[in-house]
Parts: sequence; structure tokens; C-alpha cells
Amino acid sequence: MSEIVIRHAELRDLEALRQINAQPEVYHNTLQIPHPSLEMWEERMKHPPSGRRSLVACIDDVVIGHLVLSVEPNPRRSHVATFGMSVCGQHRNRGVASALLKAMVDLCDNWLRVERIELTVFVDNKPGVAVYRKFGFEIEGTGKNYALRDGQYVDAYFMARFKPS
Amino acid sequence: MSEIVIRHAELRDLEALRQINAQPEVYHNTLQIPHPSLEMWEERMKHPPSGRRSLVACIDDVVIGHLVLSVEPNPRRSHVATFGMSVCGQHRNRGVASALLKAMVDLCDNWLRVERIELTVFVDNKPGVAVYRKFGFEIEGTGKNYALRDGQYVDAYFMARFKPS
Repeated sequence: MSEIVIRHAELRDLEALRQINAQPEVYHNTLQIPHPSLEMWEERMKHPPSGRRSLVACIDDVVIGHLVLSVEPNPRRSHVATFGMSVCGQHRNRGVASALLKAMVDLCDNWLRVERIELTVFVDNKPGVAVYRKFGFEIEGTGKNYALRDGQYVDAYFMARFKPS
Repeated sequence: MSEIVIRHAELRDLEALRQINAQPEVYHNTLQIPHPSLEMWEERMKHPPSGRRSLVACIDDVVIGHLVLSVEPNPRRSHVATFGMSVCGQHRNRGVASALLKAMVDLCDNWLRVERIELTVFVDNKPGVAVYRKFGFEIEGTGKNYALRDGQYVDAYFMARFKPS
């Protein structure tokens, strides 16, 4: 199997990112909306808020995973980052999520002075929770009716991971 | 005692809001920063993000409390709002927080189609937690080292309240 390469997302990845995030199995587990417009992805890629970093995972130059990291802008919370991740449905269970998380954790721990990484994950996303636990995330609470998914409200875990001391 | 009047914040309140949020007892319990600049408050008041509403509490036309409500922009979370509140140190225990919360809850339940109101509050802010509980907020979890305060990281409760059915 070819190696998974992690790099920063570029404007030329726009259509690939839109395609991945438009997959039903991806928006099921994230906060993406069906039928994303090209304009929305253009806006996201061309005008990211300050403190945002966008990583892609590629195999043979094809983008198959995406992670967006946002460092909190408020100085009292600038030790905190949050992120969202999407992996192409055809490339599950090949270590794509782990490769993205490894690169993100290295960025946070060793370069960005981030000490607390936060995320939310739907409580029934067992593979998601498992990979986050593998990287040291722990459940801090449960948000009831956190978001709408396929016509129903779903609960989400609040998880956090701290920089190892 | 004169009546507490709740109204939307206006540009003319800018300096009053800056003064309230610059009080040590206010930034102790919120995510405000000491020595806020006039420019920052001007920017906040003149260019609020979409979905933001800013209420003030007044006694005899003097602004003594402030609440900023933000409805989530993502359609999958547009049933959710979050808020922050500040009350002038000299006017504690006079029902200012309750008056602001009552107006906010009415807005959310009856006008904005908000079903879930979220907040974070430092775990040692006992009067804050008590007034939130009075309005139906419950603790959903605890964020460890949530924010910096006076040189130390402090934990925060994640609380939420649901629209009564």
C-alpha cells in the first residue's frame, strides 16, 4: 500500500474536499450539510479565520482525508484548539484518521503552544471515539440534542486531550 | 428601588459596556481581558457576527448589565444559542442577572426557535451556577483547564437548558 502523506490543504484541493465532505457517511458523522456549494468551499479555503489550519491526507497524490484545526482567538483560551475531521468512505480503516491526528497532535504539542485540544463527537460514532481515545482524548461530558442528523437530534461527547507533561 | 429595564444595546452604550467589562470582578468571572481597548468594543458593536444579539439592563437609564446571545450559524446547530453575561460590581444581588436571563430565555423560547441554550461558567462561580440552575440550566460536563484567569488555568462547567415542552 502506498504511503499516507500529510500536507497543508491548498486551493487546488477545493473540489476534492467538497466531494469528501458531500459523502453521506461523512456528513453523518460530522456537522457538514448535504449538497455543499462550491462557493461555500471557496469561501472557506480563500478566507479562513485567523488561527485556522487545514491538513489533508493523500495517497498517491489523491486527497482522501481532511482535518481542520482552529486555535481559539481569545488570549485567555489561546492554549486551546478544536478540530473537525473527515475521511473518504472508501478509505476507512487504513490509518488515515490516525495519520491526520498524529500530525495535528505534533503541531499542537510541539509548535503551536496548544495545551488543550477539544472536540465533539456523536455518542454513537464508536470508531471515532475509539481513535480519539487512542490519542489520549477523554470524555468530559455529554451535550444532549447537540446537533440535527437525518431529521433527529443526536447527543455528542465533549472530549479533550492535554499536552503530556 | 427603580425598575430594571432590558433593551437591545446601542452604539451609545459602547463606553458603558467597556467600563463594566473592565471591572476586575467582571473579568474574573468571564472571558474578558483587562484593559479592553475602545477599538475592540467599537468593532464588536459596529460589526457583530450574524445571529448575535446584545441586551443591556438599565436602572434610571444607566447601563449596569450586559448579555450577548449568539445563535449558532451552522444549520445543523441553529436550534442552539450560547451567551455571556456581565453585571456591574456595584449592582450585584439586585436581580440584574435574573432580569437579563428572563429576557434572553423569552427570546429563545418564543421568538428565535432556539431549543438548546448553552453556556460555560467557571466551577467556582457559585452565584453564577445558582442563577443558571434557577433558570433550568443543568451541568453536562466539566472542561479541565478551560481558560486562564489571574495566571492560573480554571475549570469550567458546560451547562445547557432546553425549551420546556
